[in-house]
Amino acid sequence: MLHTHRPRVLIIGAGFGGLNAARVLAGREVDVLIVDRQNYHLFSPLLYQVATAGLEPGEIASPVRGIFHDAGNIRFLLGEVQAIDTAARRVTIRSKHGARQEAYDYLIVAAGSQTHTFGLDQVRVHGYGLKTLADGVVLRNHVLKNFERAAWTDDPLQREALTTIVVVGGGPTGLETAGAFQELLDHVLRKEYAGSLGDTPGRVILVERRDHLLPTYPPRLQRAARRQLESLGVEVVLGESVVEVTEDCVRLSGGRAIPTRTLIWAAGVKASPLAEMLGVPLDVSGRVPVTAALQVIGLRDVYVVGDMAYLEDDRGQPYPMVIPVAKQQGELAARNILRRVAGEPQRAFRYHDRGLMATIGRSRAVAWIYYRLQLTGFVAWIAWLGLHLITLMGFRNRLNVFVNWVWNYLTYDRSVRIILEHSARDAEPLDPWAEPREHIPARKTA
Amino acid sequence: MLHTHRPRVLIIGAGFGGLNAARVLAGREVDVLIVDRQNYHLFSPLLYQVATAGLEPGEIASPVRGIFHDAGNIRFLLGEVQAIDTAARRVTIRSKHGARQEAYDYLIVAAGSQTHTFGLDQVRVHGYGLKTLADGVVLRNHVLKNFERAAWTDDPLQREALTTIVVVGGGPTGLETAGAFQELLDHVLRKEYAGSLGDTPGRVILVERRDHLLPTYPPRLQRAARRQLESLGVEVVLGESVVEVTEDCVRLSGGRAIPTRTLIWAAGVKASPLAEMLGVPLDVSGRVPVTAALQVIGLRDVYVVGDMAYLEDDRGQPYPMVIPVAKQQGELAARNILRRVAGEPQRAFRYHDRGLMATIGRSRAVAWIYYRLQLTGFVAWIAWLGLHLITLMGFRNRLNVFVNWVWNYLTYDRSVRIILEHSARDAEPLDPWAEPREHIPARKTA
Repeated sequence: MLHTHRPRVLIIGAGFGGLNAARVLAGREVDVLIVDRQNYHLFSPLLYQVATAGLEPGEIASPVRGIFHDAGNIRFLLGEVQAIDTAARRVTIRSKHGARQEAYDYLIVAAGSQTHTFGLDQVRVHGYGLKTLADGVVLRNHVLKNFERAAWTDDPLQREALTTIVVVGGGPTGLETAGAFQELLDHVLRKEYAGSLGDTPGRVILVERRDHLLPTYPPRLQRAARRQLESLGVEVVLGESVVEVTEDCVRLSGGRAIPTRTLIWAAGVKASPLAEMLGVPLDVSGRVPVTAALQVIGLRDVYVVGDMAYLEDDRGQPYPMVIPVAKQQGELAARNILRRVAGEPQRAFRYHDRGLMATIGRSRAVAWIYYRLQLTGFVAWIAWLGLHLITLMGFRNRLNVFVNWVWNYLTYDRSVRIILEHSARDAEPLDPWAEPREHIPARKTA
Repeated sequence: MLHTHRPRVLIIGAGFGGLNAARVLAGREVDVLIVDRQNYHLFSPLLYQVATAGLEPGEIASPVRGIFHDAGNIRFLLGEVQAIDTAARRVTIRSKHGARQEAYDYLIVAAGSQTHTFGLDQVRVHGYGLKTLADGVVLRNHVLKNFERAAWTDDPLQREALTTIVVVGGGPTGLETAGAFQELLDHVLRKEYAGSLGDTPGRVILVERRDHLLPTYPPRLQRAARRQLESLGVEVVLGESVVEVTEDCVRLSGGRAIPTRTLIWAAGVKASPLAEMLGVPLDVSGRVPVTAALQVIGLRDVYVVGDMAYLEDDRGQPYPMVIPVAKQQGELAARNILRRVAGEPQRAFRYHDRGLMATIGRSRAVAWIYYRLQLTGFVAWIAWLGLHLITLMGFRNRLNVFVNWVWNYLTYDRSVRIILEHSARDAEPLDPWAEPREHIPARKTA
């Protein structure tokens, strides 16, 4: 392609795919614009630690402008993509104050995925997702408020519903969330509420519709994961799915009704609906089929990476919606764009897969290193810990997260368990442009 | 007083007054109930660091239940006091789920103070206070969003309004807030927005209606404070007050109009309106006159401490609304209650005053130790730093805050500058019981 100007690369999304694409392009002979609805990159693997009061929101989020403050060729725009015109090579971006259009020569679509409730509206209304940083804080507030609310009632059924946490989904997110909540219960909440709640236990139930946890893991690790979860105190229910959800009850396919006000939905994700703006056929999860070079079929200037991309490996299996795939695809898309600018041929995606890892709690994890070495327990947990510390964004965050983890490990402390609602004069749901209406209360703030 | 049961002490408020009262009563032969609208104690002297993205909210907040988890005689209730019946010795506490009454033998009222706009409704609507943890997060979000918004406009006047911060009030809070925002501008924002905003400077203006800063300090320190603020880059306007506030402009008494969307009101506080529930005459700041033993006049079972209490010293000067007074009064009220239970006489309040201290920025501060030694600059700053680290609640917090501070000092980093709005499905302003309505977005979350 011949350019009369420096090639313009527009990246939608500052998740692992978009961020790693931008890193490849930093300092190169292209002008990059990153657009995201949030001003930060989220280190999503530790989101469950925000929900369980182990880490602060800011410890797993890194401002995009900060990451690229030394790269003169990278701009950032906080906003929401409203339309993609692939013919005119233009993206319409919306903010509270209007819309603007940004032209591109190459587009990298990396808007990720969102919680998928498979059409279960009851889950959408009464359940809690765990995909965004706001999700993590909202869930933390909700659980802590429920325990406070339990101190207000003497009704044993109400108390049970307020202190029971049901996690749906036996994948890594479900496991680590269930394990972390069980530890929060055992080591912090049960002690602090002893005077208020008496012997109301509080409990965590993990529900998985398959008859085993961690579907892509070998049976030995699946069993080890279950054993470790149960040794923590989590009740594991296999082979049952959720058929009904109300404000204070979850009913399973086997007929059992669990009184609970906290249903955490970790049972599925689907690609961002932004995929529909490309006007091409999508797969069942809403993903965009791409060529081996990660281009949209028929739209060679548009690359899609990460959870939004549908691509099969040599054995005909689609690449999973996991972070290492997103990172490596983001990098490849950026390199392929640089290759086109230089007149060189595109390269095909090859996944460098280091294996699988899931954590269950303090000293508990399972790991399948390079699909050869199977680790369980403390050794697997140390491997998981090291990997995440190394990959966490930003040195200060890494240091703080480390301090917090060592502290939590030694003491089971959960210092972050504050119920912090932002006055909520922040108006619209998930709108980064929402503005508070009145800032200083006319009423008392006691 | 003769008791047929263990004496019940009800403490309203978990600020410095209430917390220190409870500490004295922990493990003693009384039953204590602490009521607060938040589940945490706030280390308010560092709130400006949350607003300026230097610290996380959780680093300056400590859950009340966690502080007293070893004290079997202390209960906590999250709720809002609705009425105080001093005749029947009963307090009505409200939650989302109804109201309940709690009986007391002794009441300690320590609900603190709130931002006072002196009837200026424009300030209430367009200004930002800095008293609650939510205030700090809302202000941080607001300033960061304004810079993002400035990247959307080419109108120079709009840009100026979006990147200008006006702080009203020349007391310690105004000084440290202005200084910290100037440092955030100079060392982080200006660099990160260079590509988006060009040479739009961003600036901080401090307005004080008196003709000097820090009214209770000696003239030498007042001048040093001004000099240090100006050396940082803050514009200091003395002898002028705010006469008009709109969404994007502040007009001063001298006629000058400052385009700004960020007015921070640090010009006054008044006692919590909870004082009115006691049915006694209040002073002009809404404070409750108390005896030297801190009892409400005519209500000997009701003690009022901290910002809500009006008491004069030997020279006829009212004790200031500052933390050391609140702490010492909280302790004395608790000890006086224990003395009454033991049949011993009450003691009068004697303030152990270590002097005054205000910080202005990195390496900049003023201190008046025991009203003898006047320190300025780096030495005063080290004194301020040490004092706050020592008094911060909870060891983990102290360690983290220290890591953050050392890191900030060495790098001018501000890693916490994420715009995090809780989806705001949290409904009512400042209501600890507000519940989100729908948790998993039906729309995209890109």
